This record gives sequence, structure tokens and C-alpha cells, in this order.
Amino acid sequence: MGLIVQKFGGTSVGDAEKIHRAARRAVQACDEGNQVVVVVSAMGHTTDHLIELADQVCQHGGKPYTPPKREMDQLLVTGEQVTIALMAMAISAQGHEAISFTGGQIGLITDQSFSKARIQSIDKQRIFKQLEQGKIVIVAGFQGITPEGEYTTLGRGGSNATLVALGAVLKADVCENYTDVDGIYTADPRIVKNARKIDQITYDEMMELSGLGASVLQTRAVEFAKKYNVPIHVRNSQNDHEGTWIVAETRKMEDIVVSGAALKKDLIRVTIKDVPDRPGIAATIFGKIAAAKVVVDDIIQNVMMDKTATISFTVERGDLADIRASVDQLTSELGAHASFQADLAKVSIVGIGMRTHTGVAERMFQALADAKINIQNITTSEIKISCIIDKGQADTALQVVHDAFKLDKAR
Amino acid sequence: MGLIVQKFGGTSVGDAEKIHRAARRAVQACDEGNQVVVVVSAMGHTTDHLIELADQVCQHGGKPYTPPKREMDQLLVTGEQVTIALMAMAISAQGHEAISFTGGQIGLITDQSFSKARIQSIDKQRIFKQLEQGKIVIVAGFQGITPEGEYTTLGRGGSNATLVALGAVLKADVCENYTDVDGIYTADPRIVKNARKIDQITYDEMMELSGLGASVLQTRAVEFAKKYNVPIHVRNSQNDHEGTWIVAETRKMEDIVVSGAALKKDLIRVTIKDVPDRPGIAATIFGKIAAAKVVVDDIIQNVMMDKTATISFTVERGDLADIRASVDQLTSELGAHASFQADLAKVSIVGIGMRTHTGVAERMFQALADAKINIQNITTSEIKISCIIDKGQADTALQVVHDAFKLDKAR
Repeated sequence: MGLIVQKFGGTSVGDAEKIHRAARRAVQACDEGNQVVVVVSAMGHTTDHLIELADQVCQHGGKPYTPPKREMDQLLVTGEQVTIALMAMAISAQGHEAISFTGGQIGLITDQSFSKARIQSIDKQRIFKQLEQGKIVIVAGFQGITPEGEYTTLGRGGSNATLVALGAVLKADVCENYTDVDGIYTADPRIVKNARKIDQITYDEMMELSGLGASVLQTRAVEFAKKYNVPIHVRNSQNDHEGTWIVAETRKMEDIVVSGAALKKDLIRVTIKDVPDRPGIAATIFGKIAAAKVVVDDIIQNVMMDKTATISFTVERGDLADIRASVDQLTSELGAHASFQADLAKVSIVGIGMRTHTGVAERMFQALADAKINIQNITTSEIKISCIIDKGQADTALQVVHDAFKLDKAR
Repeated sequence: MGLIVQKFGGTSVGDAEKIHRAARRAVQACDEGNQVVVVVSAMGHTTDHLIELADQVCQHGGKPYTPPKREMDQLLVTGEQVTIALMAMAISAQGHEAISFTGGQIGLITDQSFSKARIQSIDKQRIFKQLEQGKIVIVAGFQGITPEGEYTTLGRGGSNATLVALGAVLKADVCENYTDVDGIYTADPRIVKNARKIDQITYDEMMELSGLGASVLQTRAVEFAKKYNVPIHVRNSQNDHEGTWIVAETRKMEDIVVSGAALKKDLIRVTIKDVPDRPGIAATIFGKIAAAKVVVDDIIQNVMMDKTATISFTVERGDLADIRASVDQLTSELGAHASFQADLAKVSIVGIGMRTHTGVAERMFQALADAKINIQNITTSEIKISCIIDKGQADTALQVVHDAFKLDKAR
């Protein structure tokens, strides 16, 4: 009746058994009268194994070496290519016609940013032609190709970017995102035992939660889904339960003040002191850092008595290596000095109801104060409040905030 | 000084250590002033592992299923793609610029015969452009792409086809084929203990030997090398010994009556009886079988008293499945009957000197007779003699023929 794009993550295609189970879902959706496109990730630990191989080659001889990003992408795109072929075989073995495509083969064109490429276009005609012949179309997630024919990967959660981009260009009725959890939770259930599955959440809330550490779906994928108004259904590949629907905002959803809480561990604060206080200096600094495609957050700028400025911001620990060279170059050019504070975390609450309800921030700060957690910095948006705290208190912070807003109770 | 194409087989790139050793050879050749192109196979048992994965998926649920060849190629091309990326990293880590290309990325265009595709053209400009920038260019062996963008594999020994095709289009001074043996031997040294490494062999002899079971280099690759007169140097990747040069015929080489002996085990003879004896019937039969791209050999046709013909030929046991359907269809259309005799072998001798020396066949037959080995069928060409024998006597046959022509003694 409609067009469904299904995506199966690495744990959902981890072995032959699981691949067949995923194949059965696709065939079933097809038997129910839908046209079906399937996006798959690399099997289980394949990507880790490939990275390990690259490490072995690059550590060889005792001189650690950072591999060229182009070659890293050339290596990593093979992971998804293995899965698409196996998935096509599984669906064919179940008696349904299927055809697999790499990102390049469906003309999923990206920019040149190896390891963090952005999707620019998709040749939907190649997919429609196969769907019209009754085939299930399988597409490799996480990858694309530049106009010059270089393979690129889409960065963390890239398969979800593929899912939503396909949903958008094919004007799908739904994007089904199959994972190993039942949906989106009010907080990470590995930390907060009484976390509750959310039935419905808005694109905006999901974007904030993703950006703040909820790992199921990436901000970029949700942003894209919002732009093209494609509903996403996050489901468990191991059962048939309804999962979490990510949808456009409705009137009723405004009554929920806080939808969920999120935690980002392992942040580093970069502080740059003795920056000449002249117009455009912040743009210069963050322009350099943006060139490394690293997300920076919690930016603070203070102007000192001596007319120099101190600028600080946080980055994820894993991104530090990428910006280190830019920071060093900046400080030497500006005569400034950089210092780094590790072991920070960020606890956040998100909800579109905040726009119309008061006292939300106070309740959060009080909960943290009651638990003797010191807040080092606060940032807010219309629908979220974030507090930078010590990494050692991160789990406790998430739990007390979750409790303060009674997120375990359904609305 | 020149342009060298080097090829490293699966055992020569089996781990990080070996990849670095291969990388060092490429860098060394470059430091000596050459332009270097490197062709690599999949690492060690990667291809076997991928086939095993496909088997698991296709055997799942107890109903064995033959995977679509397109999807099998989609799967298998990933093996070489992993190696090219790792090789590029290893060379870069050694301080030399390198860039890797898949078959598709250098426009290695093939026909549509998945699993046994033929090379049609290579976009050499893309390679020259990189060589001119001083880079070592790494190319994935065994694979190509159709004009429609489908991935294909080149069949058994496909990486050697890539090596020689590159040697030809780039007009290389030499194609270095690195393996785990010191060169081409007068017979398989695992069977004939006193087999001797050959210093020089002609394209024609090598083609015959390859077709007859010598596994180092495939007929097709040598044929191509001959056509474009590209010398091939078969060498051991683990040492610096001179290997075997495969070159155009010279006057002096004619003095060698027999250059080598070869053995093919595990042949099956297909016999088709009661075939109507009318013109064109053989063409019909072998046309059908050729469509399956299987090499048939030792063809015999006898016309019986009742005006029906009996046609027999041998195929390798592994190819039987591919032609079985064609044979069944033929027999039912022609009212003929097929039978199959397994456990056959073929022992052969090859040498361009045969053209000008007499008594060669007699000496071979006598050696087999002395060892009480029954010859079931004989085929000859200008430079080879082959005898079909029982598989059980195959190793003995190879040894006695090798002894009869004193192949262990250098000429």
C-alpha cells in the first residue's frame, strides 16, 4: 500500500540467522502490499575488525601513523557492502526477488569530507526502476561516493542518515529503524533502571536528545526527517512491539514538559586565554575549528581587565585529536594560550513543553543541588537545559534529574 | 628508469607484517627510479571466509540455495578492496605517497559475465596522472565493473589477469608476479621432489602448462602478456632470488625439448551417446556448454554403425555443476543419453622443442607403460602431449614422465 524504508543496524544483521530474520521482515512488509527498501549496516563487529586491521598496519614498526582518511573510507565501506550482498541472498533464498546497491551504485553523492561526508543527492530513479519490477532494494548504509568516484563514509550513525535520506527522496510513508532496543527511552536504561520507553516524540526533542548523547538516532538524521516530514519508527528487530514514533509536533504533545533526559560523558573543556579582544576573533577561532568538522558546545567568552578575552568550549574527548592542530596554530598566531580540562560530563533535559511552562530550570538545579552535584556551566535552548558537571557524578545526576521530573510515569 | 607492475597474491599480503614487506618492495622499486603500480589480491583466507558467510546464509533453514552470481560478486570484490586500502596505508606509513583504486575506480570495464568476467578496457589516464605525481598506485586485482556500474570478478587467477592487463595498457617494462614459490617448476614440487625451477619459459609453453594444471599463472593472463609482449617475472615475495621469466620465444630456447610436466587431477569424462549424426550437431552441443563458460577438453567423436554418434569430453569436477543443466537439456532434446566417469587425471609434457625433435611421444608412452599406467586417451598439440589416466596413478605418472625427460637437470 505504501513505501517503507527499513534499516537494520549492525547487531540486527550480526550473523546468518539474524540476516534471515531481517530478510523475513522485509519480505513480510512486501507481502502486505508495500514497496520495500532495506538499508543495512556492517555486520556486528565488522567495522571494529577493519579498524583493528588498519591499526595493525599503521602501528607496524613501532611508529604510530594516522592513516589517510581517503584510504580509511576505502576500507570501511566494504563492511556494508558485505551485508547488502548477504541480505540480497537471504531474501532471494526466501523466494523474493532482491537486488543490492552500494552507495555509489544508487548515486548517493556526497561532498569530499572523508569520514564525515554529507549527502548531496540520490539517484532515486535507479531504485524506483527496481521497485516497479517487484524487487526488494537493499542499500548499503553509512556510505556514498563523490562526483569524482571516491568512496566516502557518513560519520557516526551514517546508516541512519542513509535511511532518512532515502525516506525523503523516495517520499516514504515511514522509515523503520530496527535496533536492539524497544525504542527511545526517557533516559539511558543502562544507567537509569526505571527509564520508560517513549511512545511519541517530536523531531525537535529527538534532535536535542541526540545531540546531547542519546545514541539511537543522530541529530543530522532527525533534522533531515523533520525537513521532509518523514515519520521514523524506532523498533526492536527481535520482537513485534510498537516502538517510538518520531513525528511532527501536535497540540497534545505540548502538555509534556520534559520528554527525556540525556547524558554525555567524557567531555573536555578547551580554554584559550590571552586572546586579543577585537571584533571577529571568535569567528576566526571557531571557523578554524569548524574546518575540522568537530561539534563544539558550551561556548563562553569573557573579556578581562587587560582587554584580552578568554574563550572556552567543550568537545567530545574523541574529537580532541582532530582540533588539536588548529588550536595550536591559533594560539601561536594570536599569542594566546590553551589549556584542557578533561573528565567533564553534561546532563540535560529536553521537552517542548518548556516553552510554555515555568520553573523547569529551578527544579533541575534543585535536584542536582540536593545530590551535592556542582554545576560548572549551564546552557539552554527553548526546549532543553544542560548542565556541565564532573564526570564522576554523571550517572547520579542523570538519575536524580529523571526522578525530579517523574519521567518513569507515562503521561 | 621504467614502469613496473607488481602483483602480490593472497599469501603475500596475509597480515600486517606481510603487507609491510610487500609495501617495502614497491617503495624500493620506486626509490630505484621506477614508476610502480601494485596489484593486490584479498588477504589470505578472506575470500574463503566471504564464501563461507554466503554459504551460511544460503544453507540457512535447511534448503540449500545457489546465490545469484551478481550478489556473489558484489560480496567478493570487498576482499581486494580491504587489501588496497591497507597497502596504501602501509606505503604511506613508510613515507611514500600512495593511492588505492578499486577496479571500478580505474575504469577496468568488463563484460557482464559475473564470476568469470572478461576485461574490455582500462582508463589508463587515471593511473598515469597519479604516477606523474610520484605516487605508487595500488589497484584491486580480480575485479572490474560493467559499463552499467555492476561489480564483476574475473574468475580464478583474476588478479593475474589484472596484473597483465595493466602491464599491457601501461606498456610496463615488466610485470612482477610475487607468490610464495620461487618461480615456475618443471613439475609440481609437492609431488615431484626433484622438480627444478625454470629460469626462462616462453609464453606458449607457459600457456600450455597453465591450461594443464600448473596453478601459478592462468592461461588467459599469459595469453594477454604474449599478445602485448609484456615480460612476466614470477618471484617469491619472501626472498630476492631471481624467479622465472616468461618471455617471447628465442632461437636458443628451441633446444629444450621438454620444459615442464603438469598434472590435472579430478577430471570427469562426460559421454553423450545416441546423438543423431547430422552436420552441426557438435557445434550445437559445445555451443550450449560454452554458454556456461566451462572449459572442455579431450573431445572425441565416434560415429556408430547405427548412424548415431558418441561424443565424449572431459571437464574439471568443479565445473560439472555448471554444465549439468545444459547436458540434461541437450540429451532430452536430442533423444541422447549422458553418462559420467569420475576419478580421471591428465598428465602432460610441454616444450617448444617438440616441434623440431622426434620420438618425444614414444618416450612418454614408454615411461607410463613401464610404470604399468594405462593411457585412456591421448591429445596433442604442436608443443604438448597429454594422456588421460586413472586418478589413483596420477602422482606416479607425473614422476616417471619427469624422470624420463631428466627435467631435474638444467639445460
